[in-house]
Amino acid sequence: MKTRIFVTLKNGVLDPQGKAIHHALEGLGFDGLRDVRAGRLIELEHDDGVTRAEMEAMCQKLLANTVIENFEIEEN
Amino acid sequence: MKTRIFVTLKNGVLDPQGKAIHHALEGLGFDGLRDVRAGRLIELEHDDGVTRAEMEAMCQKLLANTVIENFEIEEN
Repeated sequence: MKTRIFVTLKNGVLDPQGKAIHHALEGLGFDGLRDVRAGRLIELEHDDGVTRAEMEAMCQKLLANTVIENFEIEEN
Repeated sequence: MKTRIFVTLKNGVLDPQGKAIHHALEGLGFDGLRDVRAGRLIELEHDDGVTRAEMEAMCQKLLANTVIENFEIEEN
């Protein structure tokens, strides 16, 4: 089984990486962008027995810094 | 409008960051993981007029290194 975990910065947390990407895209001539936010994607390939609760624990303990980041778990 | 762009390493490209995460999760006692791959997530907030073709161009020119990375565009 494959699961994707998305880790994004919470609203209000400054995102210098996203700002840099935004600026660079504008420099390349791409218009119409209002905001760019950078995050992480972690793809897990795992046995069927791994539960959603276990994956939430992985996020809480290691994959996300829940003080400043949100995470989403998308099971395929 | 919001669009998410997923940038992942191509199959066969070594992923030391994913390996490190895998190892760390095992060290924390999480079993049943077969593979972990690390990627990037870029969230764009943009005007309705920005086309998919433009977003593909952004990926080709800046957001992904297409020699070693794949990208996916998910429009919401």
